[in-house]
Amino acid sequence: MDFISPSDYYVGMNTHDLNIFQGWLGDNGVLTDEKDMAPYVHGWRGDKGKAAAVLRPRDTETVSKIISYCARKKIHIIPQSGNTGLVAASSPDESGTQVVLTLERMNNIHKIDTINGSIHVEAGVRLSALNEALEEYHLCFPIDLSADPCIGGMIATNTGGSRFLKYRGVREHVMGVKAVLADKQGTVIDTMIPLHKNNTGLDTKQLFIGTNGIFGVITEAVLRLSPAPAQMATAILIPHKIEDINALLTTLEKKCGVYLSAFEGMSGNAMKAALAHTPSIQSPFGQDPVPDYAILLELTRDWPKREKEQSLDDVLESILEEIWEESSAPLENAIIGPPEKLWPFRHALSEGVQKSGALYAFDLSFTRGKVAEFLRYMEDALAEEYPELTICDFGHIGDGAVHFNLVAQKKTSKTKVHGYEEALRAWVTEIAVTKFGGSYSAEHGLGRKNQAFYDKYTPADVKEITRVIKGAIAPIETGVVKV
Amino acid sequence: MDFISPSDYYVGMNTHDLNIFQGWLGDNGVLTDEKDMAPYVHGWRGDKGKAAAVLRPRDTETVSKIISYCARKKIHIIPQSGNTGLVAASSPDESGTQVVLTLERMNNIHKIDTINGSIHVEAGVRLSALNEALEEYHLCFPIDLSADPCIGGMIATNTGGSRFLKYRGVREHVMGVKAVLADKQGTVIDTMIPLHKNNTGLDTKQLFIGTNGIFGVITEAVLRLSPAPAQMATAILIPHKIEDINALLTTLEKKCGVYLSAFEGMSGNAMKAALAHTPSIQSPFGQDPVPDYAILLELTRDWPKREKEQSLDDVLESILEEIWEESSAPLENAIIGPPEKLWPFRHALSEGVQKSGALYAFDLSFTRGKVAEFLRYMEDALAEEYPELTICDFGHIGDGAVHFNLVAQKKTSKTKVHGYEEALRAWVTEIAVTKFGGSYSAEHGLGRKNQAFYDKYTPADVKEITRVIKGAIAPIETGVVKV
Repeated sequence: MDFISPSDYYVGMNTHDLNIFQGWLGDNGVLTDEKDMAPYVHGWRGDKGKAAAVLRPRDTETVSKIISYCARKKIHIIPQSGNTGLVAASSPDESGTQVVLTLERMNNIHKIDTINGSIHVEAGVRLSALNEALEEYHLCFPIDLSADPCIGGMIATNTGGSRFLKYRGVREHVMGVKAVLADKQGTVIDTMIPLHKNNTGLDTKQLFIGTNGIFGVITEAVLRLSPAPAQMATAILIPHKIEDINALLTTLEKKCGVYLSAFEGMSGNAMKAALAHTPSIQSPFGQDPVPDYAILLELTRDWPKREKEQSLDDVLESILEEIWEESSAPLENAIIGPPEKLWPFRHALSEGVQKSGALYAFDLSFTRGKVAEFLRYMEDALAEEYPELTICDFGHIGDGAVHFNLVAQKKTSKTKVHGYEEALRAWVTEIAVTKFGGSYSAEHGLGRKNQAFYDKYTPADVKEITRVIKGAIAPIETGVVKV
Repeated sequence: MDFISPSDYYVGMNTHDLNIFQGWLGDNGVLTDEKDMAPYVHGWRGDKGKAAAVLRPRDTETVSKIISYCARKKIHIIPQSGNTGLVAASSPDESGTQVVLTLERMNNIHKIDTINGSIHVEAGVRLSALNEALEEYHLCFPIDLSADPCIGGMIATNTGGSRFLKYRGVREHVMGVKAVLADKQGTVIDTMIPLHKNNTGLDTKQLFIGTNGIFGVITEAVLRLSPAPAQMATAILIPHKIEDINALLTTLEKKCGVYLSAFEGMSGNAMKAALAHTPSIQSPFGQDPVPDYAILLELTRDWPKREKEQSLDDVLESILEEIWEESSAPLENAIIGPPEKLWPFRHALSEGVQKSGALYAFDLSFTRGKVAEFLRYMEDALAEEYPELTICDFGHIGDGAVHFNLVAQKKTSKTKVHGYEEALRAWVTEIAVTKFGGSYSAEHGLGRKNQAFYDKYTPADVKEITRVIKGAIAPIETGVVKV
């Protein structure tokens, strides 16, 4: 299978090319000044490249023209959406020959259909802008994240987030996409059919969901909306030991069912890091010490409280009491607190951990029963192999997902050795994937940072099928991932 | 794009072939007697073909050997799961040269993981058997249907059903499949990874979901489970006029959110047919006349009622009262009744309609706001074009899906004309798809009965991409659908 890879035989972009782009894209449509290009060549986690130009199209037709032109001229395109990803999937390499294609000027919200519960948006619409537009209709696009990405990138990454338990991921909310295939013609594929039920053959849009631009560039989408949550109740649960999360989760699912919207794990180290580095955050444990592990539990209802209805806080309280009264309750303590206090605490973990030292972050997932087992195993294994590292994990453990963070508080002669990080990443990933049947990418998708794991852990048959399909429909190499 | 189609140059199956199959499949593994083959050559809606043999493998490896062998010997395979489909997708044609590959002996339930909420099953497991096995764990596979299909066929059809509003369809509950590609090697594709979050490239399983065997034969699956509903409340709502369903649905979603599990439309004619032809069914309207249109509404909770909790019946009552009190309430009347009485009434519609005369059934869907518009339009259009037909629609209108049934109570000289049914089907489908932006297959999938509509209404780019992918990965023609 041979792909047409401009990077293999790049011949350079010249003034003629830039003039062509200028003619299509108009004022501010083509950036070539280094200062102007700076925000587009930096990734979210510090990775930095160079670009030959940044192209800012306003519509699908122009994206198609650009892709077709670049294919002919052997110019390698890096599609870029919100550029908030964590795996270096949307920024150019250091060659200075790649062109960034940003969707940021395709940020129109075309049509809200409140009866159908669907919306037609362009790929450059920010998640926050989308949800603001939906507020007056009591609807939402319920993918809950700390970052504020754009819709195109969310689809290409199949983002998950904190309320996956209730809403599932982006895939389950995409009714259709418009996308430009990475082929010589820049073929536009249109699956923008806002039907809830439609079974008429291959669901072509799936090719573009979670594939990180392998097959082309998503330019528009029809999304399915959900009623916006109107009542929330949150609590912090402290299990006796990490293994108790399994019993807690299955018990809560039996008792709360569709109310259960988040079940977030927080390690003691991550919580301490948040409290140490974000002074505005108060400890939900008051004067008590931070426990070894805690869970942020959220229940939600999609309607305003009715008069005769028990409040959601009361429901939460009685559920926790029921759990408590069971013999061998998997719960040491529980603190009911307002969402506006507990969620900021949870969200502060990420920044806290980042500020604690040199961070090696892993976006892992497991079957739910294996999460505790993995964490326990790693305590011992790390103490032996990497005693300089502290585990500061947190994450969406209700879905089996763990942001497994390792922090070296001080740089030592060991951590400074060339290849240290690569060896560490390979070691952790091998244990997660091979020993515990997990995934090296729960929800951050594929990028330069985990290309090696794609190469190593993707089953041969799945890799082959991806390559064959790419070769058949989208042979031009765009973006950073090589399949 | 050239597919390898055994039907184009069929060279016949001989004793040698049968002996080979016999060796692989053992006792009762190969059926050739006409009486034995009878259940496998009849479709659910009366279509009848002939088979050269029926093969009954017990494992994926044997399915692979059969597909590879048949590719070499140019024998056309028709994969068959529960054979309960309504579009003639799993029964052989009348040539007598095709071989039915039934999954019925692959009916093992391998592993229930109650913490992860997942289960590993073989493709021939019946929906009812699966849910029986899950009962003791308070879990379910929540695709609610009148029929009792097998899991493989449900995935290949991406079945929807009555509780789609709450649970969505089969696609959203498949974590992975094992499938044999329709290629010369009978390549086994294994995506059986029971992870809730896993974003590591192309989601290969999507190729097999809702594609009706185009790319090969699903042999095993890992399914995501849901907590089983523990409380139910149902009511029949009578809107003033069909157009009121839009306001009713959006109001109910705001007031019930995640409680809302079914919103089923029932035309007066379908209800009358059920009452006329199923004497065991009582009218929920008592002595009152059957209204022109009614909705079966269901609310569910996934946990047993707690002491301090308002009963779900009371919740339903207060919600209906709230709607009632609004000025311009879209509701003429409402009857709260027990699920064990109202669901059988809803389920009796299908049989009642079938017994009313010659039935022309359509499995349509629309954006939700267009359902009423379409039904109203067809009243007039049919009165003009096909006055001999009565509309007896019902269906999952909460998802925009309508089982649009037309009944000719008496056969007339007009209905007996050769080509009458084809012309009628073409006329209705053209209006549904072109005028109302709908789908000709909401949830029944593709088969011989709607191949012509696939050919006509699939956008050229989607059709082309399907053909290119099939040509690249699964060039052997299996099953009945031609892409």
